[in-house]
Order: sequence, then C-alpha cells, then structure tokens
Amino acid sequence: MAEPLRIAIAGLGTVGGGLVELLERRRAAFEAALGRDIVIAGVCARDRNKDRGFDLGDVPWFDDPVALARADGIDLFVELIGGSDGIAKASVEAALGAGRDVVTANKALLARHGTALAKAAEGAGVALGYEAAVAGGIPVIKAMREALVGNEITRVYGILNGTCNFILTKMQDEGGAFEDVLREAQALGYAEADPTFDIGGHDAAHKLALLTSLAFGTEVAFDAIDMQGIEAITSADIQAADELGYRIKLLGVAQRTDHGIEQRVHPAMVRKHSEIAEVSGVTNAVAIHGDAVGDLLLVGPGAGAGATASAVAGDIIDVARGWRLPPFVKPAAKLKPIETAAAATRQAAFYIRLAVHDRPGVMAAIASGMAQENVSLESIVQRQSNDASASAPDTPKTTAVVLITHRTGEAAVMAAVRRIADAGDIMTAPAQLIRIEEL
Amino acid sequence: MAEPLRIAIAGLGTVGGGLVELLERRRAAFEAALGRDIVIAGVCARDRNKDRGFDLGDVPWFDDPVALARADGIDLFVELIGGSDGIAKASVEAALGAGRDVVTANKALLARHGTALAKAAEGAGVALGYEAAVAGGIPVIKAMREALVGNEITRVYGILNGTCNFILTKMQDEGGAFEDVLREAQALGYAEADPTFDIGGHDAAHKLALLTSLAFGTEVAFDAIDMQGIEAITSADIQAADELGYRIKLLGVAQRTDHGIEQRVHPAMVRKHSEIAEVSGVTNAVAIHGDAVGDLLLVGPGAGAGATASAVAGDIIDVARGWRLPPFVKPAAKLKPIETAAAATRQAAFYIRLAVHDRPGVMAAIASGMAQENVSLESIVQRQSNDASASAPDTPKTTAVVLITHRTGEAAVMAAVRRIADAGDIMTAPAQLIRIEEL
Repeated sequence: MAEPLRIAIAGLGTVGGGLVELLERRRAAFEAALGRDIVIAGVCARDRNKDRGFDLGDVPWFDDPVALARADGIDLFVELIGGSDGIAKASVEAALGAGRDVVTANKALLARHGTALAKAAEGAGVALGYEAAVAGGIPVIKAMREALVGNEITRVYGILNGTCNFILTKMQDEGGAFEDVLREAQALGYAEADPTFDIGGHDAAHKLALLTSLAFGTEVAFDAIDMQGIEAITSADIQAADELGYRIKLLGVAQRTDHGIEQRVHPAMVRKHSEIAEVSGVTNAVAIHGDAVGDLLLVGPGAGAGATASAVAGDIIDVARGWRLPPFVKPAAKLKPIETAAAATRQAAFYIRLAVHDRPGVMAAIASGMAQENVSLESIVQRQSNDASASAPDTPKTTAVVLITHRTGEAAVMAAVRRIADAGDIMTAPAQLIRIEEL
Repeated sequence: MAEPLRIAIAGLGTVGGGLVELLERRRAAFEAALGRDIVIAGVCARDRNKDRGFDLGDVPWFDDPVALARADGIDLFVELIGGSDGIAKASVEAALGAGRDVVTANKALLARHGTALAKAAEGAGVALGYEAAVAGGIPVIKAMREALVGNEITRVYGILNGTCNFILTKMQDEGGAFEDVLREAQALGYAEADPTFDIGGHDAAHKLALLTSLAFGTEVAFDAIDMQGIEAITSADIQAADELGYRIKLLGVAQRTDHGIEQRVHPAMVRKHSEIAEVSGVTNAVAIHGDAVGDLLLVGPGAGAGATASAVAGDIIDVARGWRLPPFVKPAAKLKPIETAAAATRQAAFYIRLAVHDRPGVMAAIASGMAQENVSLESIVQRQSNDASASAPDTPKTTAVVLITHRTGEAAVMAAVRRIADAGDIMTAPAQLIRIEEL
C-alpha cells in the first residue's frame, strides 16, 4: 500500500466537521479505491475548546492557519476558513508556496484572486481544487474541467444561490411577500442575519465568475459581472409570471456573444415545465451548453455540511490519485483577459411592470414611449394593483400595467422606460424589469 | 510538448464520424489543455469505400479490428463497433491483451462481460473508459467513479433510454396510441426498425447494470435485472396518471435494501413537478443518492453523434493525462457477487387498471380480492373505458377500474390481482400494474 495522504484542515465549522466525519466513515472505502489512506495530520480553528461533537484524538492543533499550511508532514491543505482575503488567502498562498496541494471551498477567495492563485499552484506543480466552491455537492467543476474538454462551451448558467431560490420558491408556492419569506428563511437558517450577500446576488456572482473562466478560458473577472439581486421581486411579479407561464429564478448567466462575453446575475423568468423551473427550495442547478454534447443540466444541493464535504472529499481523492490539473483547464498564463459584451448589446424579451396613475391617457403614453424606442410589445395588460386595492378610498387611484416585449435590445427597453418616467405624472413608483430567459 | 497520444478508431458510423470531427475541431484546445496532441493512427470499418463526409487523409486503414487493436504505433483503442460479443469483444480483448488503453461506447459488451474486461484492463495496467456507454453525453460515470467516492451510494435511478422517453412524452403531450407514436419515432430515426431492444427495456437494463456496479461495488449482473418494457402502456394509463398527478417514465432503478440490491427496469409513475418528470423527449437523466451529498440529478442527451463523441473524447483525454482507474472504482477482483433482493420483498404503492365487465358485483369482487391479500387502497375509481366506448352497442359492456394502493408488498398486489383474475368472469383483459415511484 502506498504512503498515506496527509491532509491539514483549516476551519472546523459545519463543513470542516462534515469532512472530518466523512473521512472517518469512508476510511475503508478509500483504502479499497485508492490503495492508500487519507489521514488528518493537522487542524486549525478559532476556538480549541469548543465541543464540535467529534473527537480528533491526538491530531496536532494549530492556532495559526499559515503555520499549519507550512507545517512539516503535510501533503495537502484544506482551506475552509472563508473570506476573500485575510488569513484564508494568506494560508492558501503559504501552502502553495510550500509546495502543498490545496483544496478549498472558498468562492470569494477564488472569485477575487483565482487567476493569481492558479498561477501559483501551477508554478509549484500542485493542485488547487475548488469543486466545493461552486454549487456545493454538484460535480460541475469536474464536469467542465475534465469530462467536457472535448466541447467548446458557448453558455453556462444556473441557479447558484440556495437562499434566493428558497425565497422565490416559497413566494411562488405560498404567496408571501419578500420580507416575510426572508424572515422565515432566516429563522430556518437558510439566510444569514445580514442577508445582503446572498439576496443581492454577490454569492451567485462569485460562483459565476469561476464558471465563466472554465467555460471560456478567460481570467477570473468578478468585477465584470453585471449584478442584480432579488430584493425588488414582489408577489405581484411572481403571480404575473405564473399567469404568463413562467417562474422567477435568480440566474447567473455567462455566454459568448458576437460582442464579447456576457456575465450577469439577475432575477429572470424561465418557462414553466422546463427542468430548471422545477428546481425548487435551496437546490442549485447548473446548465452547460457545449457544441458537441448539447445541453446538460446538473441539479443538486448547493450547500450544507454533507454536500460540501462530499465535494471537498472528491478533490482530495483526485490528489490522492496523483491527479493535478491547471485549475481553469488551460494553463493560467494562457487565460485571456475577458472581453465583456457591453450591456447595450444585450438582447432579450422583457417583462415590465409599471405602477401608474389610473386615469385616461396613461396607456397611450406608455405605448407611445415604447414605440418611440422601437420596442415592440407582445402584450400590454392593465392589472388591479395590490397598492391600489390597499389604499384608502380618497387617495388618487393607481394601477399596474404589465408589458411583455418581443426580443429586443435591453438598451432600447431601458430607454423606453426612462422616457415614460420622464414624461411626468405617469408612474407612481420605479419600474420593475425582469428579463425573460428563453434557454 | 509530450509525445502525441495515438488512437485507433474501430467503427466509423455516426459516433465514429462524430469523434473524428470533434478531434479535428478541438485540436488546438487539446494541445493547450493537455500539452500533447491526440492523433488518429489507424481506423477500421466495414466498408472502406463509403463516403462518410470527412477525409481521413493517409491514416492507415484496417479491415480487421483485432489486427488494428494489436497494430504497432497504437496507444489507445476506441471500440465503436457495438454488440455484446463477436468482433467488438474480440478486438477489446486483443487491445487489452496488447497493453493498450481502451475506450468504448458499448453498453451491451460491458453489461455482459464488464467484470472480466475490468480484470483484464487492471491486469494490463490500462484504462477501460466507458463514459459513452451510459446516458450518452451525461458525465455520470466520471461523477460516480471520481467525484462521489466520498459517498456511500444507496440508490441510483434514471431515464436511461431516449426512445422510450420520446414515445412516452409524445403520448403524454399529444394523446396518441403507443403503436402510432412508435411508428412516428421510427420515421424520425429515434426508434429502430426492430424496436424490441429499446422498448422492451434491454438497452436501459444494460446501462443500469453498469450503474449498479459503480454504486454498490458489485460484479456486473445484467441477468439479475428485473425487466419490463413500455409496450403495454396505453393512452388510458397516461391520462389516468396525469389526473392522479403523475407522469409515466421508463425507469432503471438500482437500490440497496435490507433484503439485498434491487435492480429493475419498468414503467413507473413519478410525481408531476419533480425535475425528473419534466425530462422529456429523447433526453436522459440519472439521479444518484449519496449519504453525504444527498440527491443529485444529471440531465442531458442520451444518444447522438455529438453527445456520444463528447463522452468518448472525455475518456480519451483522461488517458492522455495519464489517468487510469479501476473501471468500477474498486479493483475488479474485490467486486462482490450481487445479492439480489427477492421480488417478494419489494415494497411500493401501485396503480392498477383492470378492464372488467360492467355489471353488478364486480366492484365488490375487486375490493374483496384486495382485502383478502391485505392490500389497502388509497382510491378505487370506475372509469369509462376506451374499449367500451369503441365497441358495438350489442356487445357486453366493459369498463375500467383504476385502483391506487397504499405502499405495500409487490407480492401481495400480484396475488390480489391473480385472485381477482381467478375469480372468473370479472376481468376482460390482463391487468395493468404500474409502480408509483416516490423518489
């Protein structure tokens, strides 16, 4: 039997604990499949005295993850600390610098510093595994980095944030308002006390940045992502989508166009009865279009101790087999700077909900604004507004108008809405625009 | 740059042609990702003079695949001939015997001889890649053999035959009869002139046999699969399923139970609005349950030149990287004989459609037959039978009774139906039983 693989684990929270348990539970299976043991040769966490519910025996304890990353007798460093900078980054750099393989679940770190860290890993001839950083337990990094190399990828998109999908699914199924459902998600532990990072789309964007690089061979470019969260989605939008035959999902989309690469995170309408429309709750999904394979969809848990530990373990096993790949398929030095498609070049059909005064001439003004920007409409429907029905009888009446455009330039739609807003005394609140994603 | 990987391709049909084109198209990408070329060093097909629409230049031509498998200057043998025995088997054995890596899309060959071929590959220290043999372009073999090794798999199931799924989807969407839709599928090239192999469940069973071994570390045991096709599914069943909130799919299911391993292929009802219920047309899907990761679902094209070539290319690339694994995760010598769960131990809820005489006492006889076998019913509904409405006014009237059982022993349900049949002069045709798969 070969020498055991000696791993160090920095971070013993939910995922770290899940990993320790998985390694113990699957010891015999790993021996059978790999012909070698995987042993924990060092750990590090903030609080040494916390009861974590598992026994690490006499595994050496480190207070400093950088020291652990450089310690003798370590082959592979598992970073489960989190955060794009600070000790997470320092310890990963230290491990790579010391010639140790690295496995991490840290999407923020890679979204910010992925290209540089990939170069460091390749320079040291070691692995930088990050399966757990994107879509939790779904083996999408392995699929894109290995199985699909025969393909030119033209698009990758997905439901990349479980918190948002949980909230949107609940709003869909039970009709609640965004704020109420968010509070419920917080109570269940599916949303943080400060939920901005999830519901604002940042977390999904971190993951999308990595998928984009894998798909298109470009440097990781988190800042190039056009990002919009789900905060403004109302139950009126959810209901209108349902009636129109759609579901609203927060999507991360990266696609190659004639104008460059689009990277965007935003709520989108997807057609009911598609597989992705049925992805509900905290589940994640990633869809990949390759020129040879066609369309693939991978669905699974995007977070949680077990799912994340499963992905981390998969990366560790690859290293135990002696497998090391450039983190983004191509050598990092050959990744190209991203050429981002200007927002003005983007095309789509749009759902537009306008809160307007309920009086003569308003519909004509809306139709005229659209016409002046050459936006052609599939439908325009005046709807009973929730606001109107709730308002006191003596307040001026407002109503909602829902427009569905044909596929058109995003810029023209924006301009038309601005035109209507600027016409004065028509809209009573900012317009709601949701892209209809025909995938 | 490293030495090129020299591959031989035996079989230049749809998939072989797709592979030749893919290798040409992606030459530069392979060089960038692998640091080495993949070159075609020999080919073999039945008819040398056929116009295949691509130019092989001066690639050496062989008439005998066994000679190609053993030829000098070949590193890897790609078997795209098909068939469980004959020259496909002989050439794969010859290649392994000569110490060449093998990649194949041949599910029949592996379902029949997988364990022995895995032993031969391991003995020779070479790869035996078969990603293309299961679910076409979906990278499910890589997922199970590599990404999910951290998990104990307890169940794997899926839609493994595109022809059947196309037929069932068409029947669902357009209401046609099985025979009519089958003819349409044949006209479109989605079903063979002799469709038995697909619609009888054989093809799905071949794939399931491989998934079972990967999931449970058991020897490949195709003959242990309980197999039932879709020939008996009528539009009345499809319609009843729809009304009850289900879709009918041909599933292959392998799961570990307290009584052993179940391996079965049969039509099943799956709940509407689940992701798998929305997998339509020729698309395939594989669902995997692992103790750490939870539930994964992988969806994609199950056949076709591009999708299959994508999977074959993925296997070739792994070999080009120097990666070789035991074909079924564990070394083949350590695979255990399968302990099949006896059919009598299987539990499920069932849909039962009985064609019966429309006269007093029939419902009572049915209810009594069920009660005598302790099968408790969720519902029992008398329905207007299609047969009845089509029959001449003077023939004795028949009607359909649809029963839904609670979860119960399959053996008891069978016994109850037999009891009703034996009671005489109740049923006018054999009973239809469809398992309700609560997944």
